[in-house]
Amino acid sequence: MPELRKDPIIGRWVIISSERAKRPSSFKAISERHAAHLCPFCPGQEDNTPPEIIAYRSQESEPNQPGWRLRVISNKYPALVVEGTLNREPKGLYDRMHGVGAHEVIIETPEHDVDIVDMKDENVKDILWAYRERMLDLERDSRLKYILIFKNHGEAAGASLEHSHSQLIATPIIPKRVSEELDGSKRYFEFKERCIYCDIIRQEIADDERIVKDFDSFITVQPFAPRFPFETWIVPKSHQSSYLEMSDSDYLVLAKCLKDTLTRLKMALNDPPFNFMIHTRPVSRESHEYYHWHIEIIPKLTKVAGFEWGSGFYINPTAPEEAAEYLKNLDVSEYRSNTEDNRIDTAEGRE
Amino acid sequence: MPELRKDPIIGRWVIISSERAKRPSSFKAISERHAAHLCPFCPGQEDNTPPEIIAYRSQESEPNQPGWRLRVISNKYPALVVEGTLNREPKGLYDRMHGVGAHEVIIETPEHDVDIVDMKDENVKDILWAYRERMLDLERDSRLKYILIFKNHGEAAGASLEHSHSQLIATPIIPKRVSEELDGSKRYFEFKERCIYCDIIRQEIADDERIVKDFDSFITVQPFAPRFPFETWIVPKSHQSSYLEMSDSDYLVLAKCLKDTLTRLKMALNDPPFNFMIHTRPVSRESHEYYHWHIEIIPKLTKVAGFEWGSGFYINPTAPEEAAEYLKNLDVSEYRSNTEDNRIDTAEGRE
Repeated sequence: MPELRKDPIIGRWVIISSERAKRPSSFKAISERHAAHLCPFCPGQEDNTPPEIIAYRSQESEPNQPGWRLRVISNKYPALVVEGTLNREPKGLYDRMHGVGAHEVIIETPEHDVDIVDMKDENVKDILWAYRERMLDLERDSRLKYILIFKNHGEAAGASLEHSHSQLIATPIIPKRVSEELDGSKRYFEFKERCIYCDIIRQEIADDERIVKDFDSFITVQPFAPRFPFETWIVPKSHQSSYLEMSDSDYLVLAKCLKDTLTRLKMALNDPPFNFMIHTRPVSRESHEYYHWHIEIIPKLTKVAGFEWGSGFYINPTAPEEAAEYLKNLDVSEYRSNTEDNRIDTAEGRE
Repeated sequence: MPELRKDPIIGRWVIISSERAKRPSSFKAISERHAAHLCPFCPGQEDNTPPEIIAYRSQESEPNQPGWRLRVISNKYPALVVEGTLNREPKGLYDRMHGVGAHEVIIETPEHDVDIVDMKDENVKDILWAYRERMLDLERDSRLKYILIFKNHGEAAGASLEHSHSQLIATPIIPKRVSEELDGSKRYFEFKERCIYCDIIRQEIADDERIVKDFDSFITVQPFAPRFPFETWIVPKSHQSSYLEMSDSDYLVLAKCLKDTLTRLKMALNDPPFNFMIHTRPVSRESHEYYHWHIEIIPKLTKVAGFEWGSGFYINPTAPEEAAEYLKNLDVSEYRSNTEDNRIDTAEGRE
């Protein structure tokens, strides 16, 4: 079983997951590249993955068989496991507990070489809806304190399989990075009695220097102090502390917004490796009126090196105003998917 | 001039350094590889670097000419610049200031293909002594609050030149990562009235599960909660809050210890990319009795991906007890430098 250990000085938890060392790609510079017929995420390979937790599939199809357009499965090499109790205990001055949690994979499409930017808006909406379904289900597990959804695209961003997917990890403690955001926005709220993200949105709209695109319910914006070149945030314009507070109709708007943003980044930076992470409030009954959920997208164009590791400072060679100007002026209608001619629209077409 | 900007939510500073975008390696996957005769850090190329700040060189040689065994220069593409005032100012709800500080490069050897592991102990000591000299000098600049010394080795660890070098960046604020360590160790000290690092050393020696090697004045140890596989710390055994508190004779001991540790990592992991960072107390007259300086070495074997960015958690597939066992049992006398036969011992030999 994986083990959670806490750094006694700065309170950062790590997951010691020796089982993951068995992953074929461990410590290798090259990720697994499969021909489509060998990819475990492709239709026909369902036996090579853990059984599906949920799937969106044609009515006549059977679970764990082809016919799906989206599948959610447990990670075959989980960082945290669902079974067991936490058993939090000391070891001298150290703290540790069992690595209890959840680690799931959202296989976003049956098509091996299709990314979010190549999908129909409705298919992107399916992905966002699957996030919602899994969050709602896992929130019922009282051992879990936080549910993080993220996507790694490209080998340099940590993706070990190229077939488009995202991941969910639910943790038994609130992660440090999340606590920092909660503490910071709470401090601001206590001082101003306003949500800091709402104030940021106001200022960004007024300044109009860093906004990439204003959607109905969301804005795509370069943050004022980005860690990385072309770091881009998607923020709901109305105050919502949780991803789950989004109205049903907003899932399609967010799908269009996310696809538009990723398309701009792909066009600007030649299909860069990137991560995106949904930042949302912890699992709890507390109102979190001071917090405001959002998505952070970080292209991997620069290396994190000794200065960043030692200081927590980041050196960013691209001003966000320049990046916003560039992204804003791109014509996304000029984007041509490399799979546009030969792609099929639904999973049914494959069978 | 570079600009320092503060994230308004979590208080992290970033350096927006548009001048660095001119670096030839910006956004390119491949770092600069020079033949030795084109490397700007090699003897004979002194005109291609900023003038030296200090150098250890033969008596008959001239500044900025060959004949040196170590040179410290300003970084040609500095993240922070020495000239100017801070001009801290708001911009709406945001904070920013001029990017004032220092950014220096320690060229550790005149030999293009020699790393620390290949050097004589005395030459490694020179490097450590140069760190000391630069720290002492920069501490006199009242604008500077912290001096970070670090090394990036290998392209994946952010090194853009392969000629062995380390760097110094002095910042006008105490970096977040440093504050976290100071706050955490202060909290422990207030509770226990003991230094947490001293307690860790006691427990590590008693447990004897994670110690790689015990030197006279230092131990090499795998931390209990390492972020990365084979993350290794070098910690002085007696209580010292600052790198500058080391006794003169300990520089040679530390040189042997650092070389030994890097040799083990090189042997175990096939010359991995790595970073090391000296964690020391800030520039200040405060006693910092609760803090304990040390060196953190992080090999780059795994990718930092969406989960880590979103949570601040790290997933580490190698238990530190396993890594310590492996490193401890290596016979460093079996290490054969690939440059052993053709290397020359002193810079004089080149001329």
